[in-house]
Amino acid sequence: MSGNTFGEIFRVTTFGESHGAALGCIIDGCPAGIKADEEFLQHEMDRRKPGTKGAAVTARNESDKAEILSGVFEGKTTGTPIAVLIRNSNQHSSDYNNICDKFRPGHADYTYFMKYGIRDYRGGGRSSGRETCARVAAGAFAKMLLKEQGISICAYTKEAAGIKCSKTDESQIEKNLMRAPDSDAAAIMQKRIEELKKEGDSAGGIIECVIRGVPAGLGEPVFDKIDAVLAHAMLSIGAVKGIEFGAGFDAAELTGSENNDSMKKDAVFASNNAGGILGGISRGDEIIFRVAVKPVPSIYREQKTVDTSMSECSIKIEGRHDVCLCPRIIPVVEAMAAIAVADLSLRNRSSKSE
Amino acid sequence: MSGNTFGEIFRVTTFGESHGAALGCIIDGCPAGIKADEEFLQHEMDRRKPGTKGAAVTARNESDKAEILSGVFEGKTTGTPIAVLIRNSNQHSSDYNNICDKFRPGHADYTYFMKYGIRDYRGGGRSSGRETCARVAAGAFAKMLLKEQGISICAYTKEAAGIKCSKTDESQIEKNLMRAPDSDAAAIMQKRIEELKKEGDSAGGIIECVIRGVPAGLGEPVFDKIDAVLAHAMLSIGAVKGIEFGAGFDAAELTGSENNDSMKKDAVFASNNAGGILGGISRGDEIIFRVAVKPVPSIYREQKTVDTSMSECSIKIEGRHDVCLCPRIIPVVEAMAAIAVADLSLRNRSSKSE
Amino acid sequence: MSGNTFGEIFRVTTFGESHGAALGCIIDGCPAGIKADEEFLQHEMDRRKPGTKGAAVTARNESDKAEILSGVFEGKTTGTPIAVLIRNSNQHSSDYNNICDKFRPGHADYTYFMKYGIRDYRGGGRSSGRETCARVAAGAFAKMLLKEQGISICAYTKEAAGIKCSKTDESQIEKNLMRAPDSDAAAIMQKRIEELKKEGDSAGGIIECVIRGVPAGLGEPVFDKIDAVLAHAMLSIGAVKGIEFGAGFDAAELTGSENNDSMKKDAVFASNNAGGILGGISRGDEIIFRVAVKPVPSIYREQKTVDTSMSECSIKIEGRHDVCLCPRIIPVVEAMAAIAVADLSLRNRSSKSE
Amino acid sequence: MSGNTFGEIFRVTTFGESHGAALGCIIDGCPAGIKADEEFLQHEMDRRKPGTKGAAVTARNESDKAEILSGVFEGKTTGTPIAVLIRNSNQHSSDYNNICDKFRPGHADYTYFMKYGIRDYRGGGRSSGRETCARVAAGAFAKMLLKEQGISICAYTKEAAGIKCSKTDESQIEKNLMRAPDSDAAAIMQKRIEELKKEGDSAGGIIECVIRGVPAGLGEPVFDKIDAVLAHAMLSIGAVKGIEFGAGFDAAELTGSENNDSMKKDAVFASNNAGGILGGISRGDEIIFRVAVKPVPSIYREQKTVDTSMSECSIKIEGRHDVCLCPRIIPVVEAMAAIAVADLSLRNRSSKSE
Repeated sequence: MSGNTFGEIFRVTTFGESHGAALGCIIDGCPAGIKADEEFLQHEMDRRKPGTKGAAVTARNESDKAEILSGVFEGKTTGTPIAVLIRNSNQHSSDYNNICDKFRPGHADYTYFMKYGIRDYRGGGRSSGRETCARVAAGAFAKMLLKEQGISICAYTKEAAGIKCSKTDESQIEKNLMRAPDSDAAAIMQKRIEELKKEGDSAGGIIECVIRGVPAGLGEPVFDKIDAVLAHAMLSIGAVKGIEFGAGFDAAELTGSENNDSMKKDAVFASNNAGGILGGISRGDEIIFRVAVKPVPSIYREQKTVDTSMSECSIKIEGRHDVCLCPRIIPVVEAMAAIAVADLSLRNRSSKSE
Repeated sequence: MSGNTFGEIFRVTTFGESHGAALGCIIDGCPAGIKADEEFLQHEMDRRKPGTKGAAVTARNESDKAEILSGVFEGKTTGTPIAVLIRNSNQHSSDYNNICDKFRPGHADYTYFMKYGIRDYRGGGRSSGRETCARVAAGAFAKMLLKEQGISICAYTKEAAGIKCSKTDESQIEKNLMRAPDSDAAAIMQKRIEELKKEGDSAGGIIECVIRGVPAGLGEPVFDKIDAVLAHAMLSIGAVKGIEFGAGFDAAELTGSENNDSMKKDAVFASNNAGGILGGISRGDEIIFRVAVKPVPSIYREQKTVDTSMSECSIKIEGRHDVCLCPRIIPVVEAMAAIAVADLSLRNRSSKSE
Repeated sequence: MSGNTFGEIFRVTTFGESHGAALGCIIDGCPAGIKADEEFLQHEMDRRKPGTKGAAVTARNESDKAEILSGVFEGKTTGTPIAVLIRNSNQHSSDYNNICDKFRPGHADYTYFMKYGIRDYRGGGRSSGRETCARVAAGAFAKMLLKEQGISICAYTKEAAGIKCSKTDESQIEKNLMRAPDSDAAAIMQKRIEELKKEGDSAGGIIECVIRGVPAGLGEPVFDKIDAVLAHAMLSIGAVKGIEFGAGFDAAELTGSENNDSMKKDAVFASNNAGGILGGISRGDEIIFRVAVKPVPSIYREQKTVDTSMSECSIKIEGRHDVCLCPRIIPVVEAMAAIAVADLSLRNRSSKSE
Repeated sequence: MSGNTFGEIFRVTTFGESHGAALGCIIDGCPAGIKADEEFLQHEMDRRKPGTKGAAVTARNESDKAEILSGVFEGKTTGTPIAVLIRNSNQHSSDYNNICDKFRPGHADYTYFMKYGIRDYRGGGRSSGRETCARVAAGAFAKMLLKEQGISICAYTKEAAGIKCSKTDESQIEKNLMRAPDSDAAAIMQKRIEELKKEGDSAGGIIECVIRGVPAGLGEPVFDKIDAVLAHAMLSIGAVKGIEFGAGFDAAELTGSENNDSMKKDAVFASNNAGGILGGISRGDEIIFRVAVKPVPSIYREQKTVDTSMSECSIKIEGRHDVCLCPRIIPVVEAMAAIAVADLSLRNRSSKSE
């Protein structure tokens, strides 16, 4: 109800603030008997973790060690709630002291203050991107469940800082710091981001996500269509400002005869303008969508804003911040997609008489 | 759970198939004491209703009379469930006889068959766009609730059949058949749609929606951000393939210094790239989003598809179908936006200690 | 949320007031492919319907014809929402004119007024026992689903007007007007109720319910234990003031060695003090519980109460009212039990890895 | 969905097994600005904690230190999820080694095995009464919320081991080890329990709970009546086998004229057979209910049972176990009542137009 839970059967609830004691999640509704791969869990945490390897990402050194507190026994899920704890460490709350009564532009500072009447100035508190580490932990379990069903999820940077990929070679994704399927384009992105960093500015981009192995039939008409649930999942990521499936916004300019995907023998689709979804239900081929990621709002230039008395002032943000979120948001996109699909796959177990 | 309910406190559940006895909805959670305007309800139904006035819309003549069965007493809501019934009439199920074992391209025929093991061939059954009339009825009550809070919603055709509006004059919206805020552009759209109709083809478009009067503070972190809930609502409309807020996909190419909306005295925002939302919470100015509407899949050309035995065949669709959904989908976009915002406004009543 | 929905996967939402246009329900989440037996549906409605056969029940003549509006096609459920409509008729709203500003003792008149600020004086409005006809319609579908799983439900009057049954012969239940499994006791109950009727008074009783065929494993730890969900279901019936499972309140006086049910070969339980439930999960034998039914509050004696200005006054109720609810509440107890068990049986489909 | 969450707006999710790393809860939906009293939280934990003071309670020495991980800032709730962690310690898993393939009578061992296909033999795992410490933590926050509304909850042992209290002096409750409002009766209970302990047996009892200060209007018709929600809450406690409100099962033997509570000037009720609830909605006076607590199933006598191969065997339980749960279950009854009422009080914020 308060919005910290996602999913109906495979339900994920997250908690924690960027500068509190800990973050974490409870995954309720994961069936018993799923192999619980702790190494994979930590691997997923590490993929999201801030590092020092590229200019795009923050120089903070968070350890993000995930501890499983419950729901796993002798290497398998037990059907009871899986709680995962991630202790905070290395917080520099002092970075925020000089701006504690000012609202950072592009952040949720003002809106949280208006909603709750409280100013948790320590790096965004609950609205911080740091909250997504709990999602990645939950997503790791969703991926373990999906793996047993032969479903896999792959997201990558399609565009960043205005530079577009000109090919999609998934084998290159983890080989460049931008997580782009085109290492040449990635190099140019990287260069542009270095420049923006020097200018105290930041960049946005576009992430594409492909979900493979989803059987036909997932998605619940009429409100919980698989695209509706994925859109909900993606727009719940702070920096995401849009989503499109298949041909997406381009479909608006196509005619029906161009846009319709015809079918061939054995229900093979001849094209995929629909993004693998018809009437909100998966049709058995690849589900494809793209999300728009806004430029990081924490820039090092002086900006105009107001303080808690609603008086004008200027603000200068300090601390360590990403220049472009794309590489680090990819594990979050995958995690949320995994949670959404895992949930719909369990919901689908009730579609037919046994 | 099965996906026919939307909302947490202001909860709407719809029922009904395109060629069954009736459609309708239950609106549960509407507070007591709201003025129940039956005339307005019917007016909203009529806005969505198929008519004969423009080439864009179907020639079917559905009456779509909404009957309130419960929840209203002496002109006011009572706090108990409001049920609205819309009897079906004028169904031409026979239009579908010759395609009853074939899957129409671009429709949900195949996916419903795979999900439920049942082939309700009568015009899409539950997946038909006709289901949205129940949403419009529910949306009318949401609008009545929002009206008391000074919140209004306005959607219009921003682009159709590849023709873009070059101005946004809301006073022109209901003066042209495309419901475009630019009557000149509307005339060109109309002409292009006539041509497509002759060619047995169809068109898509883009709808823009503006929500005014929303106070700062609506939206529930972290998963039920106002943009996440609106995205869920919009993607639950069959023909919608994408959504973007504020600068949307264009934000991906902006820098942080360009994209951040700075604040002025009294918390006035100097620009609105964010679409009126920060951290998933309304900031008190206009909420703006756009949705991509795919071209109508029911076209009059021969198409390749498969039948229920998964063998290839060709299909030729008959009956009466819209050429471009934009004008008729506008009341649905508004209805879903109204339901989403009404729900979040009630959810926000619990944000603070009283 | 507003409380008019019961169930998580097999979800029932009811609507309607005692003197409004209609009552009804939406059953969402019923799997596709269940045989939809319309005759059985009407039979269940008729079991709850007020009749003239016994002194215990009201002399009103309601037809309670159930119309299926959606969700059924060619004799089977389709997986989409099943809506059932029951038009009101034969309402004597005028019976309530002279008490329209007075709160009837033992009824919800005062509490609804305090909650909603509205006085719907027409026979209780939403709080009327008439609302339960919508539950019986939904329960009929739940029973159809359970029948395919070999689960059956049987409730009967265990005690009424202070008279207890001294045997449990289920074959006698539908052979006497009290629906008691002991026709001799039923005759005495009936006589006592006739006397109370002459005195303008009313009686309560105890209903016992047995659920057979439930496999081991139903119920969701820790909050949605099968007994917790059944208790929720039963206490949601207006006249029910208590529930106990198995040995129930008597267990409070037993020792552990007396109360524990030991197990024999092939997991057969040697006794059933637990009511067929351990740790909130069904153990595969009979589930047994009893509910306390309060005496009908509508009596024909003058009573002390207050009016809407909170001033003291006396009230004399007119119209036609049951003297003892037991016989008519039995189909409602069965319906709610069926809905609860149907829901938990679908929820259990996600307990294990497939 | 999986049943580990209770509440709709004030939502509590618990996690953890008796012999895992930790237990805990997330409280989502607590409004911002509530005073977060950590001392009171620990005090509540200590009230439930096993101790050595009385024969009724186990001799285990669990520290049950509650750590707040999130949702509290500068002494107040922030409106974000409150996570509380309770590390397990002092577990004697070895106590269970010799019975690891046998199902303990009266416990959930068999039913969990049937549901999940997994045997977590370490003291009941998730089904252990130890899980209730997480509920008490959540209940402490519910009580903090209710305190600001002037609502208080008091539960006590009404009967134990067959001994009934003959007076209700709340000042005596915390002065005797049975938490009975009659210290003389408590002494007799205590003596009887000592005897049962020597005999290797155990005892049950009845808890009564009084909720004061609830305004008229709480409870959501029709399914989420306040008594239905409280019944759900109470029956979700493992050892509880029944509940009754006000006159309860005795009401079954009263006539309407005896049972109806008449009203006096200013809406004062002359009696309270209804337990403070009419039509499922609080009427503004005391809410009173009683729950039946079964005797502790862990007794030290040899019992007949089956093992995981469903073969007959005998079992002898070791370790430290309570003889009568009443004193320790009281904080759990209060916690669950507090959570239920807190939730309904927030839900009631949407009952009327503002």
